[in-house]
Amino acid sequence: MASPFSLDNPVFSKFAFYSTVVLSKTLCMSELTTLNRMRKQAFANEEDVQCFAKSKHAEVTTSDASVERVRRCHLNDLENVLPFVLVGLMYVSTKPGVVEASRVFQIFAASRLLHTAAYLLPLPQPSRALTFFTGYGVTFFMAYKVLKAVY
Amino acid sequence: MASPFSLDNPVFSKFAFYSTVVLSKTLCMSELTTLNRMRKQAFANEEDVQCFAKSKHAEVTTSDASVERVRRCHLNDLENVLPFVLVGLMYVSTKPGVVEASRVFQIFAASRLLHTAAYLLPLPQPSRALTFFTGYGVTFFMAYKVLKAVY
Amino acid sequence: MASPFSLDNPVFSKFAFYSTVVLSKTLCMSELTTLNRMRKQAFANEEDVQCFAKSKHAEVTTSDASVERVRRCHLNDLENVLPFVLVGLMYVSTKPGVVEASRVFQIFAASRLLHTAAYLLPLPQPSRALTFFTGYGVTFFMAYKVLKAVY
Repeated sequence: MASPFSLDNPVFSKFAFYSTVVLSKTLCMSELTTLNRMRKQAFANEEDVQCFAKSKHAEVTTSDASVERVRRCHLNDLENVLPFVLVGLMYVSTKPGVVEASRVFQIFAASRLLHTAAYLLPLPQPSRALTFFTGYGVTFFMAYKVLKAVY
Repeated sequence: MASPFSLDNPVFSKFAFYSTVVLSKTLCMSELTTLNRMRKQAFANEEDVQCFAKSKHAEVTTSDASVERVRRCHLNDLENVLPFVLVGLMYVSTKPGVVEASRVFQIFAASRLLHTAAYLLPLPQPSRALTFFTGYGVTFFMAYKVLKAVY
Repeated sequence: MASPFSLDNPVFSKFAFYSTVVLSKTLCMSELTTLNRMRKQAFANEEDVQCFAKSKHAEVTTSDASVERVRRCHLNDLENVLPFVLVGLMYVSTKPGVVEASRVFQIFAASRLLHTAAYLLPLPQPSRALTFFTGYGVTFFMAYKVLKAVY
């Protein structure tokens, strides 16, 4: 029987696309942290201050509000996007229908892009909570499908 | 030759089950953090205070003891559960025996469930350390098997 | 058509090797944190102090400079190594040439080993920044290849 893990399988192909989009978005948070550290001159290491600080009086700091906000958003991505991709791989192995699977991946990707917007602008709550729980629910839906298929 | 990454392979099927269990447990830590933030009224963002705080005098805080304990437990999951699933995928590709593989996955899953209990109750040390090193050892065992198979 | 996810595929075999190397290195950061906590007597939990502290006057602390440096390095690994392995899985599914793929995996693995050295010694900047952006660029290169293949 053919393996579901091949780009010939439209479900895996959709999964590869949306996973790569949300993983790339997650990676971009690193660069956003760096840009904020430069702009706010808020460096976490002594050697960074020595090389990148514009003023000789700059000091190590780990409490700049804009930097910490980006870092919280980044950590939230690690907590949610990485499990989504891993549970998603197992979900693909259950050979779901391509329509259901596409919707699941699209809703997750959209919810995480909106979550980032809600966190960084920031938008008033409960907008961030709603985007968070949408993605969270999608991952648990896939987990349920996996457990049902293998148990 | 058949791909090992299919639910027709009992090793992959066991792997999918136990991976989904430990990933779901990891995801639950987010919800536990939220519940603790609500209960202790310890919010990390200004917009969360404005929407969810019961008192007008609530302030942003990132140092509540119960919230930080759940967050340390969650981060420990990210550091250990995610590498387990990824190294486990490579381990499945080495086509291990189903008895060995099942034991490996079961011991890991049990050690992480006990680790969470030991962290959150909390139990006296070295109980948490023992559960941590059990799961840690399992992942390195799989990593050794992969390196031996491909080198 | 044969699945690319098999050790019979030399691209997957290389990927399994280098992924397991960088994941094992990431796991080692946990142990390094523990060793530093013991050496500096800087424990994050009350129950750790009670069991492992040599002095009765030891207190919980989350601000020891050497421990926090190892932890920042570890978090940077989670932010970069885990997405590399996940994007790498999708990249393997695009059936890249074995020469290109080997170079990509080798450059990533080397950049992360050098990044850890640059962070922990520490080396003067911009050495750490260069190693970081090398690995970062490699992951985005793979992400571009995946999106091009499936779109």
